[in-house]
Amino acid sequence: MASRIALIAVDWGTTSMRAYWLDATGAIVDTRSAPRGIQQIRDGGFAAALHELLGPAGEASVPRLACGMIGSRQGWVEAPYVPCPALLTSLVDGIVAVPGAGLRIVPGVTTRDANDVPDVMRGEETQLAGAVDAGESRVLAVLPGTHSKWACVESGRIVDFMSFMTGELWSVLLAHSILGRLAAPAATPEPPGEAFARGVRRGLGAGGLGHDIFGARTLALFGELAGHEVPDWLSGVLIGREIRNARSWARRHGYDASSVRLIGDDALVARYVAALALADVAVERADGHAAATGLWRLAVLAGLVQPHH
Amino acid sequence: MASRIALIAVDWGTTSMRAYWLDATGAIVDTRSAPRGIQQIRDGGFAAALHELLGPAGEASVPRLACGMIGSRQGWVEAPYVPCPALLTSLVDGIVAVPGAGLRIVPGVTTRDANDVPDVMRGEETQLAGAVDAGESRVLAVLPGTHSKWACVESGRIVDFMSFMTGELWSVLLAHSILGRLAAPAATPEPPGEAFARGVRRGLGAGGLGHDIFGARTLALFGELAGHEVPDWLSGVLIGREIRNARSWARRHGYDASSVRLIGDDALVARYVAALALADVAVERADGHAAATGLWRLAVLAGLVQPHH
Repeated sequence: MASRIALIAVDWGTTSMRAYWLDATGAIVDTRSAPRGIQQIRDGGFAAALHELLGPAGEASVPRLACGMIGSRQGWVEAPYVPCPALLTSLVDGIVAVPGAGLRIVPGVTTRDANDVPDVMRGEETQLAGAVDAGESRVLAVLPGTHSKWACVESGRIVDFMSFMTGELWSVLLAHSILGRLAAPAATPEPPGEAFARGVRRGLGAGGLGHDIFGARTLALFGELAGHEVPDWLSGVLIGREIRNARSWARRHGYDASSVRLIGDDALVARYVAALALADVAVERADGHAAATGLWRLAVLAGLVQPHH
Repeated sequence: MASRIALIAVDWGTTSMRAYWLDATGAIVDTRSAPRGIQQIRDGGFAAALHELLGPAGEASVPRLACGMIGSRQGWVEAPYVPCPALLTSLVDGIVAVPGAGLRIVPGVTTRDANDVPDVMRGEETQLAGAVDAGESRVLAVLPGTHSKWACVESGRIVDFMSFMTGELWSVLLAHSILGRLAAPAATPEPPGEAFARGVRRGLGAGGLGHDIFGARTLALFGELAGHEVPDWLSGVLIGREIRNARSWARRHGYDASSVRLIGDDALVARYVAALALADVAVERADGHAAATGLWRLAVLAGLVQPHH
């Protein structure tokens, strides 16, 4: 296999890392992952973690390019944020090398919201590079996650984006607030059911989030929501409200926000599919390897690999 | 003292209990408190906790009336919620007696929001009875707390109210989410400073709460907010957004929401004073013993005491 490999692409985040071996056409030949995100690595053991994941197939002669939190201040080497509007080519200019490791790291992207408060992404910029073609004139992209992102991408340029703490709010509120007291684990986590849809409809309406989520307590108290439905309902409210807020943000950028490109393929993404349908938003799915594709495209632009077609 | 006491009023909540001794004019003669909220009391030890707090001054011949979570399902005896619009007299009708304890408990109040989701209060209805006179035609009242409440009170009637999880969101997010990572304890907790005001201004604006609070992370990351300012800033965003949402709710009830009656006297209330000023809302303060006054008024209405003037 080794002779055919043109690039080793590494998606290295907070809680896990995943490596992809790509051939000279950019096709994924192999992939391997480990629960070795930067939060799990102590005393700078990044080189050991990388060597362990890549193993004998990690020949130093093959270029390696990484994205994600590995390039943050808490990571291996910091790759400073590139400001919006961020061209793919400016991402390439911001790539930093890890001395002696044969690894390069893609920078994150930053923007400022209407109140001049900064926002940041690391890893998602590379997924966007993989999921949106440079020739597409205008795409509203959604990247669900602990801190989900919505991004306006135009002709290979990340014009602006916005983060929502949806995933973290859900887990923190269930684990540590009164909303978790009457909650029980969901009986059938997939697909999201009627309680999720009820939550989404509440979230899509006008309201105050600090009030609306309190219903996870009161509905359970009044027997109008079963304990096992509470997590689904709360998830629906939070995702619904995110969709409402993000759409009004996108409209201010001149998007009609009637369709989005959804990036990812996990269970959380399935919830967004259901919620976006309830919001009458058309969904186009990007495949689950957007990070690998993005790293490939950036490596080509950076001249790290010579693609064969 | 004993001969002059007409009522022992007990404000008995989740985390603490406070007793007031009132004379026949309704004046507070003495008060005593203990960290014995219903969450701290195991195996139904309510009688012992009450006896311990009242001590030798707790003569069984004096009527005793309590409010708060002691009347919840997790309390001593459940006093079922009275629905809005709730007249003071209907609160009186809902008073339940604890058999053999010489104690009566005021019920909580419930309402339904625009989505038909229930909301509840326990204890605040009594504070409202104490802080708003039956003759006042229209008062928009604010009760800061872990789950703060806004209430429309008209001629001795709680027309409607709305809860916000503001206080709990603040503590849970700082203790358990990424927003607490770069936070440090506030150097000077009182009075709230410029970081609080910056947060309030953000909260008062249009935005998505799930996005707006993320600034507690990014501003600290970019050195635009010091660690000790993070708690103040986040508190400002949450209180500011509560004010914005509650005012638009009150306007739908026909209130112009340019002035409010603020009930309470703790450090949290001082934050609401500062935030409401930034929102150009005129504030009228109710005194800190609204619960005692409310229990007195309800006791008079219920015929438990004969007031002397």
